[in-house]
Amino acid sequence: MSHTVEILSVGTELLLGNIANTDAQMLSQGLSALGLNVYWHTVVGDNPQRAREAVRAAKQRADIIITTGGLGPTCDDLTKNVLAEAFGKKLVFHEPSAERIRSYFARLGRPITENNYQQALLPEGCTVLDNDWGTAPGCAFEAEGCHVVMLPGPPSECGPMFRHRVVPYLRQFSEGIIASHTLKLFGIGESQVESRLRDQMNAMTNPTLAPYAKEGECELRVTAKAPTDGEAQALLCPTVEQIRGMFGAKVYGVDVPSLEAVVLDLLKEKHLTLGCAESCTGGLIAKRMTDLPGASQVFRGGIVSYTNEVKHHVLGVPQELLDRCGAVSAPVAQAMAEGARQVLGCNIAVSSTGVAGPDRDDRGNEVGTMFVAIAAAQGSYVRPLNLGNRPMRARLRTQTAHHAFDLARRYLSGLPFEDENG
Amino acid sequence: MSHTVEILSVGTELLLGNIANTDAQMLSQGLSALGLNVYWHTVVGDNPQRAREAVRAAKQRADIIITTGGLGPTCDDLTKNVLAEAFGKKLVFHEPSAERIRSYFARLGRPITENNYQQALLPEGCTVLDNDWGTAPGCAFEAEGCHVVMLPGPPSECGPMFRHRVVPYLRQFSEGIIASHTLKLFGIGESQVESRLRDQMNAMTNPTLAPYAKEGECELRVTAKAPTDGEAQALLCPTVEQIRGMFGAKVYGVDVPSLEAVVLDLLKEKHLTLGCAESCTGGLIAKRMTDLPGASQVFRGGIVSYTNEVKHHVLGVPQELLDRCGAVSAPVAQAMAEGARQVLGCNIAVSSTGVAGPDRDDRGNEVGTMFVAIAAAQGSYVRPLNLGNRPMRARLRTQTAHHAFDLARRYLSGLPFEDENG
Repeated sequence: MSHTVEILSVGTELLLGNIANTDAQMLSQGLSALGLNVYWHTVVGDNPQRAREAVRAAKQRADIIITTGGLGPTCDDLTKNVLAEAFGKKLVFHEPSAERIRSYFARLGRPITENNYQQALLPEGCTVLDNDWGTAPGCAFEAEGCHVVMLPGPPSECGPMFRHRVVPYLRQFSEGIIASHTLKLFGIGESQVESRLRDQMNAMTNPTLAPYAKEGECELRVTAKAPTDGEAQALLCPTVEQIRGMFGAKVYGVDVPSLEAVVLDLLKEKHLTLGCAESCTGGLIAKRMTDLPGASQVFRGGIVSYTNEVKHHVLGVPQELLDRCGAVSAPVAQAMAEGARQVLGCNIAVSSTGVAGPDRDDRGNEVGTMFVAIAAAQGSYVRPLNLGNRPMRARLRTQTAHHAFDLARRYLSGLPFEDENG
Repeated sequence: MSHTVEILSVGTELLLGNIANTDAQMLSQGLSALGLNVYWHTVVGDNPQRAREAVRAAKQRADIIITTGGLGPTCDDLTKNVLAEAFGKKLVFHEPSAERIRSYFARLGRPITENNYQQALLPEGCTVLDNDWGTAPGCAFEAEGCHVVMLPGPPSECGPMFRHRVVPYLRQFSEGIIASHTLKLFGIGESQVESRLRDQMNAMTNPTLAPYAKEGECELRVTAKAPTDGEAQALLCPTVEQIRGMFGAKVYGVDVPSLEAVVLDLLKEKHLTLGCAESCTGGLIAKRMTDLPGASQVFRGGIVSYTNEVKHHVLGVPQELLDRCGAVSAPVAQAMAEGARQVLGCNIAVSSTGVAGPDRDDRGNEVGTMFVAIAAAQGSYVRPLNLGNRPMRARLRTQTAHHAFDLARRYLSGLPFEDENG
């Protein structure tokens, strides 16, 4: 299929800049992964006239229109009314949706008002997309050669509605299956990945291969079209394995959410515990680890040692080492990791120390000079980093935390800490 | 002035969902604050035909068009070419911009290629908006009753370009000054703020008052229009003071970025140091503090005690207390804060303990049961929290960290820890 998609978002809060249009981003990612071409995003406010104008334009230039927002009682169900009108559909009362709304409010113990029932008015003959994450149902219909899909605006509803309702719906109109795998790489830039794969990417038609840069990481998405999922997987597997072979230990996972999620799973699998000692990352490593549900099974804790006194008194870093080498040094990074391992009583500890800026430190170390270390039963290891070409505090900290997780991941997977070919 | 603005973003990366359109959000906020009505956001890819179609539509419905992206050499300067064509302008070589590009590359020590100079081609007679944050200059011109402003796409360039170049440019066309102040409130919901202010908000015309909900906080923006800044401020001040009086200690600042930034400033002002002991927030408090440049002057560090052993061995929480009351309890929160103050050698320490979920703890405490505490020379204080109505891990953690910073802010400002009227 070579459909053209327009995403039409309805909501004054977008035009006021109260929120970013993350729904459009999420939908664009998901639709691209299905092989659909998104050519337009349009945003209008809760205004019937402009919504009508936007729908008129979208009808002319797209054959799949996906709307977000404007389904709730506070905006008079603007989107539903305008789309139904544009495609000559009546809105009819959908009793099962009314029942869902009733039981939703009952579960919350909140009173239901008459305008809540308006959400059960849906275009005649549409496919109802049940909303298990909120009250307003979504819907989809085909008319005048155009597929229309309407989704609620809150991202916590729009996301699961897309994955669980819209993807299966759109697959009906696809001649086959589109499947993809995402390889996650750390320690190599998007441009390097691209230059090593460019010829291959250009030559490939099915599967296709596309790189994406992500805050100091790189993703490679392999996508195949085939009549069945089995056939799609058969097309995908050799490419996935070939890329794994090409980039070796730099590939930290396939279809995994993050480096820290891989570390968490490895720790659980091996029944080992983790701790950390952080200077320049200031709590970010611990925060990212504990963002994950289930972290408490394997994560014991961390010390944020933002001063030399805390490094010495809490982590036991020798004062002599701090005086001689300075806090931003390989020996101190190592002593911090070893100290954290002792103090926190964990199997493995990682540490970070460095200059996150805005200014160089009192020993003249440049912004971006960083050290991460790991300590385990077998010994410890320090990786020096020079991130000076990206001197933004938040990015430097994110990148340094990535490296700490990368050390843990490599240790737990039995991989060398550094690749021989750099 | 009652201008109508359309934001037109050009970039295939937006349509693929690689990034969210944060430029449009930032611009919408800024333009709304200037009193300009943003009625449309449109996104197209790096495609001349669709870009032309988008410009045609924007010309008809808006009298200010602001574009982002499509100015670089990799997309053939798509935006500049299309806009110049649409308004019958020639592109002419702008030597000062070429010189800026030359010196930018010289500073970075990178070679300059011929296509970089294309960025110095600008619509004849335009106002050049110098780009101090990247290479592609922006520009602005008026034609056919329409103001056109073109900005580079990277948010790190688009943001400062808007604030430092576009705002002064647009002010020329304004009959007066639009000024605003933002009051930041913590400990009260947007709906409560709105219901207490609704009648007043509806009755106000200049200044106007608008509430915004922000992840567990609430903002109130007061905006005034007047011939001069002095007159605008004279309109704003009484309202700001009146609202301060109404919401008392719940107002944590005016025109300040965050609770932690207020805490950082108060610590610097009073020459006091801070530390923290975190259980359920798992490093988030330390991370937010150290996100701020200059935190190292006053922030000594933190202990992330994700197990009872770490609470006992590192923070010195009595084992008997942990056994008797459980880790999620007021006495343990207090002992954690007191322990952190001792161990980290800081003047003030805050702590958090609670159940962030997804499951209740082994003592049957519900998800959302939280305690935050503060310890200082004068003693300590615990605030119990029941955040169970919003059972999402990330939100619970954010909210709990907010409360810890709120305790520090109140302590440092000499305010009571709790308001009498709730």
